Amino acid sequence: MRFRILVRVMPRAGLLDPEGQAVERALVELGFREAGEARVGRAIELTIEAGSAEDAGRQAQSMCERLLANPVTEDFSLEVIAA
Amino acid sequence: MRFRILVRVMPRAGLLDPEGQAVERALVELGFREAGEARVGRAIELTIEAGSAEDAGRQAQSMCERLLANPVTEDFSLEVIAA
Repeated sequence: MRFRILVRVMPRAGLLDPEGQAVERALVELGFREAGEARVGRAIELTIEAGSAEDAGRQAQSMCERLLANPVTEDFSLEVIAA
Repeated sequence: MRFRILVRVMPRAGLLDPEGQAVERALVELGFREAGEARVGRAIELTIEAGSAEDAGRQAQSMCERLLANPVTEDFSLEVIAA
């Protein structure tokens, strides 16, 4: 079975995020004065062949730990969708 | 009310995505031979003060159209979460 994996990799809370600060400043300058606490990370999508959604999720978790996210500075979250 | 907005900005289907290709190649080299069709975009999170979830969603849509996504090369999707 094919599964589509949606990954979010975000800078860990408390760590400096200059890109997020730049986005926040630009939003306020555009007139979105209600915007705050902006953080910018990476969104990754990929397809996995796996026997079950659980197996696909395990593989995706391992991909994040080994390649997609930096374990020192980033947190990730996963979504598994039957494709 | 405060809302947390989760935005995904992805390269439009059909457009070249060298970062996605690099991720896919690296995953296969790490032994994840079942991985394919990788795409890499940006994940953005921010907080909005708004009167309702609909209003927060409208503001976030406008932020994406005016700043967060490139309307020629990228697609975005939004999630609004009561904070």
